[in-house]
Amino acid sequence: MKDYKALIHQWMEDHREEGIRLLQRMVQAPSTQGNEAAAQAIVAEKLSEMGLEVEIWEPDGQELQKHPYFYSPRTEFKGSPNVVGVWKGTGGGRSIILNGHIDVVPEGDHEQWDHPPYSGKIIDGKMYGRGVTDMKGGNVSLLLAIESLVQLGIKLKGDVIFQSVVEEESGGAGTLAAVLKGYKADAALIPEPTHMRIFPKQQGSMWFRIWVKGRSAHGGTRYEGVSAIEKGMKVVEHIRALEEERNRRITDPLYKNTPIPIPINIGVMEGGNWPSSVPDLVKLEGRMGVAPEEKMEDAKREMEEWLKMLGRLDPWFEEHPPVLEWFGARWVPGSIDLEHELMNTLVNQYRSVLGQEPVIEASPWGTDGGLLTQVGETPSIVFGPGVTEMAHYPNEYIELDKVFEAAEIIALTLIHWCGAESVGRN
Amino acid sequence: MKDYKALIHQWMEDHREEGIRLLQRMVQAPSTQGNEAAAQAIVAEKLSEMGLEVEIWEPDGQELQKHPYFYSPRTEFKGSPNVVGVWKGTGGGRSIILNGHIDVVPEGDHEQWDHPPYSGKIIDGKMYGRGVTDMKGGNVSLLLAIESLVQLGIKLKGDVIFQSVVEEESGGAGTLAAVLKGYKADAALIPEPTHMRIFPKQQGSMWFRIWVKGRSAHGGTRYEGVSAIEKGMKVVEHIRALEEERNRRITDPLYKNTPIPIPINIGVMEGGNWPSSVPDLVKLEGRMGVAPEEKMEDAKREMEEWLKMLGRLDPWFEEHPPVLEWFGARWVPGSIDLEHELMNTLVNQYRSVLGQEPVIEASPWGTDGGLLTQVGETPSIVFGPGVTEMAHYPNEYIELDKVFEAAEIIALTLIHWCGAESVGRN
Repeated sequence: MKDYKALIHQWMEDHREEGIRLLQRMVQAPSTQGNEAAAQAIVAEKLSEMGLEVEIWEPDGQELQKHPYFYSPRTEFKGSPNVVGVWKGTGGGRSIILNGHIDVVPEGDHEQWDHPPYSGKIIDGKMYGRGVTDMKGGNVSLLLAIESLVQLGIKLKGDVIFQSVVEEESGGAGTLAAVLKGYKADAALIPEPTHMRIFPKQQGSMWFRIWVKGRSAHGGTRYEGVSAIEKGMKVVEHIRALEEERNRRITDPLYKNTPIPIPINIGVMEGGNWPSSVPDLVKLEGRMGVAPEEKMEDAKREMEEWLKMLGRLDPWFEEHPPVLEWFGARWVPGSIDLEHELMNTLVNQYRSVLGQEPVIEASPWGTDGGLLTQVGETPSIVFGPGVTEMAHYPNEYIELDKVFEAAEIIALTLIHWCGAESVGRN
Repeated sequence: MKDYKALIHQWMEDHREEGIRLLQRMVQAPSTQGNEAAAQAIVAEKLSEMGLEVEIWEPDGQELQKHPYFYSPRTEFKGSPNVVGVWKGTGGGRSIILNGHIDVVPEGDHEQWDHPPYSGKIIDGKMYGRGVTDMKGGNVSLLLAIESLVQLGIKLKGDVIFQSVVEEESGGAGTLAAVLKGYKADAALIPEPTHMRIFPKQQGSMWFRIWVKGRSAHGGTRYEGVSAIEKGMKVVEHIRALEEERNRRITDPLYKNTPIPIPINIGVMEGGNWPSSVPDLVKLEGRMGVAPEEKMEDAKREMEEWLKMLGRLDPWFEEHPPVLEWFGARWVPGSIDLEHELMNTLVNQYRSVLGQEPVIEASPWGTDGGLLTQVGETPSIVFGPGVTEMAHYPNEYIELDKVFEAAEIIALTLIHWCGAESVGRN
């Protein structure tokens, strides 16, 4: 096994400039929602060059929206293709999906960037740009891992299915489309920016909106009205109690360092429109975390039942129950068995390449791993080189060394997971 | 005295149709802010007809805004004249200001009105329309009171100064302009819609805005942030405690039937803009009631000091103190001595005309009486025929009988307050 490690390490050293140049080209193709085609063309070209069987298609929004797990602000994906490259194995090995999203969140205010957001500028070993960490850096790790094996003439027994999907940032319609096309494997690896931590479990989440009613009155006689703001505050406190209740049940050691494993965040509170009127309506919007092994439907039901208890705390809610809506984005939770062979393999290769123990945690956010796990029946691990804290922020960057370290670990993982024709030979 | 009462009552009976027609014409001239000229022309014509000395002028916004009590969303009053009519007394009597505002609040959504909002339609003794209760009905009571005395040949000793002002609904710039022009009297009467209750004291109010800070974070790791919504809720609760504290001090028997004499209303709460982000800023807007005898500056200072105590309750506020702003409208509190002779006179004439005891209370809202009291040194009573609950609402109406009852009471009050040349004669 040592020889593979040395071979691959050397290959990475030899192809460092090309790898960096590939990442830079991908960052310089801004792939915000609706504008993914140019970046996908670079990926497709690379896959063809390596000899993979490439499929490119625009997801069919009309079909997708019939699926219960579909969410996207759009149903038309013209100009937003998925790209999949299949490296067929020689047979008898385990298959793997390597999944990364090509879409990036908008760069926001350019004033907040020290360099133009799509420059791909390199300073002190870090490349800067929107999407470099979330998650084009991870995608390049995958491409380098495959390319190293191809160029070194290593033949895998199991299939490697590389997926460059759209729409992860908006709810996962790209991965859902790939799953519904029939792509499946024995396990999956997603190099989202974990900063080299291994996440065998991913928290899901759903957005909710709650309308809280009051009764209007003039502020000078506010006692004649009922303040929707005061009632809304009670609802917020009630939800805080639900969060405590739900987190009390989480005993998973992967969460031992997480103060609130599955938070319920109240992100928006808006009510009233006139200083001297008693507000009669408040809108709350938030995000409910869903435990990795929890069903979203169960979490929804728990929130619904919990809100019904408000009537016992305050008779106002008996007659004016808050109205709960599930809206907008949601990310399906995902997980893999901690004893799953892909976990063992990845952890071992991590140790082997970096000479230290990996940090293994549960993610505080969702990824497309949830859809792969729950819809695609493909258990998923999330592990990638990107800097977690920089995702979605101005001056997003990645440490280039990590891209190559991840590529080495992934290449070795592929050999051990899929099996290699020549494993015994060296 | 009986004869005056009978004479005036008869005069009102005889001029009922003309009075109603006058009110209807005034309602049919929509006098929202900036559009007061047509309604004021009707008033000015009426005053001239009765033989009063009429002054018409557009307030000088440039001059007015130098005054500490000026508030208006505008500083240009072109097309928005004040109208004052002076009925000079024969000498030796007490003077009075009769003040009413001509501006009306916008009619809002026409769909919510059963009849067009400026129809002045009459059904079952009630006239409907925007401004009919707040406060053109009261203004017509004043005009009928003066006209009855003029036509009956009764000569008053003291001056009667009738003021039809703009801008009451936006902060009182019209009355302030009249005060600054030098109009002053021994007392004032304002027929705002009290539904025939007598308000010797009027609550003032001020608008405030509080910015509460938090620290942003992703909702999945919300424990890394500080929710401005949760901190905002603490501020709301702290203000509720201030309201309790301030109202504990109110022992005035005029407030004995008022659950919260000087409320602090939180009318607006707005924070956050993304369900899965921890909100980093919340805006609160509200109205602080000011006691009739309280100085607005003292009330402001109390709020400012109170907010400073937040740091002791939660160290977050120590480093991130909420920012308090006084903005927008404010209404100066007003009052008259309960033993003031105009109070005695009004109460007596009320009893005499209606054969029952008047309800005497403190108002839960401000009027231009505050400016007359505090800037114009003219103590003021608020008493009028309009239906309090309908002010500012769709389907605003007034009971026409009340307009004439108020007119009778006011006419007799003028005789007794200003003195009449012929009082002894009958």
